[in-house]
Amino acid sequence: MADPRISVINERLIRITRIIAVSSGKGGVGKSMVATALALTLARGGCRVGLFDLDFTGPSTHIILGAKKVQPKEERGIIPPTVDGLEYMSLVYYIGDKPAPLRGLDVSNALIELLSVTQWGTLDFLVIDMPPGIGDAVLDLVRFIKRIEFFIVTTPSVLAFETVKKQVELLCELNTSIIGLVENMKMDKGNVIEVATKKLGLRYLGAIPFDPKVEEAIGKGKQLLSTAIGFDLQKIAERFISKQKSDP
Amino acid sequence: MADPRISVINERLIRITRIIAVSSGKGGVGKSMVATALALTLARGGCRVGLFDLDFTGPSTHIILGAKKVQPKEERGIIPPTVDGLEYMSLVYYIGDKPAPLRGLDVSNALIELLSVTQWGTLDFLVIDMPPGIGDAVLDLVRFIKRIEFFIVTTPSVLAFETVKKQVELLCELNTSIIGLVENMKMDKGNVIEVATKKLGLRYLGAIPFDPKVEEAIGKGKQLLSTAIGFDLQKIAERFISKQKSDP
Repeated sequence: MADPRISVINERLIRITRIIAVSSGKGGVGKSMVATALALTLARGGCRVGLFDLDFTGPSTHIILGAKKVQPKEERGIIPPTVDGLEYMSLVYYIGDKPAPLRGLDVSNALIELLSVTQWGTLDFLVIDMPPGIGDAVLDLVRFIKRIEFFIVTTPSVLAFETVKKQVELLCELNTSIIGLVENMKMDKGNVIEVATKKLGLRYLGAIPFDPKVEEAIGKGKQLLSTAIGFDLQKIAERFISKQKSDP
Repeated sequence: MADPRISVINERLIRITRIIAVSSGKGGVGKSMVATALALTLARGGCRVGLFDLDFTGPSTHIILGAKKVQPKEERGIIPPTVDGLEYMSLVYYIGDKPAPLRGLDVSNALIELLSVTQWGTLDFLVIDMPPGIGDAVLDLVRFIKRIEFFIVTTPSVLAFETVKKQVELLCELNTSIIGLVENMKMDKGNVIEVATKKLGLRYLGAIPFDPKVEEAIGKGKQLLSTAIGFDLQKIAERFISKQKSDP
């Protein structure tokens, strides 16, 4: 039953210091926006950063970055192209823009394939845009990449948070590391999510207000950094960067 | 390989006139809100309506309805309880409020089980809250229930629509019937989504403006009908009702 590619996966990731999975139990919370902006912010802060789009329900970071025309190079594996200063890889290069109704086992298989063939350089951070929910791909990633750290995104909606809560409970059962939770698209001053997050034993990383400029920045890559999402993630990311730099 | 339960499924659904799958390629577009409000609206219009929550990524209609305390009865199958005038069934009764990381095959299995044991009464409409995306559950439902009709929900966001577009392409390939598309949480007067919908050959059913009252109505069932979502779905649903009534 052992797939020889699985043993290759951790070798492929060995030159990456931290692997951050931007994730949400719920879709539509702005997860891909946050993942892209986080990667761009870390890169602007002087880090070497990769962005890996593994959202099997519909990869979209290539649309956000406006990176439709780049292609990875094949050279004893796949070398990610550079987009806006990021080493960028997406499963859209495999499944294309066509509908991709992958069944559970196909998802696992595509995931193993992508992880085992992609040749990342030396990176301070690899930011992964995860599929929403707690399906096959999430379970597999936690299994394959032991040192993965989750960065959870929710909106202020009770429905979103209820679903995110379930995801957090599952990740805790699996002994997965969670950096904390970001509250995206906030429209009021309430602290319901902040209180509920702390009650879960999680770090509340901060709120990002709803900003219509985010939608306008789609396809313009770094322009995302001049929106609320870029501004607030900057403050959150500074902690990562300083933590990273103070390491020996 | 034939599962004897599959042949039971269509028998179970035989007393239902129309089966409407409220669905979105993308999560977080308000699909569950729309499904719940559509069911409530049709019921208020005098129809006999069932609401079936099959969102495996996180069932939430019981939270919207505030129906946490009801339970289905077991009596040669499962009899859905009545909630706000709806025959109501949710997979939350099976998987509970705990994290449920179902793998692909488990999803198919749970789906077959639920469809084959639930004893619906004579209904004009069964509204299904579908899981987002085009994963196992969606493929299975299309396979098991040939006469299922899709009611697609998107938001005005380009990212949401891009994902929804893929879903529509897939449904067309599978020869599935699509009633049309609703644009939810609209914040401006643009017609980008309307134009793009028509370009796909789909009927644009209308827009529902963003309304903060929707969040406040969570847990209060019929109060949803006094929000924008209730008001606009009323107009859309009237077409269903009149079509239904004019049938012999």
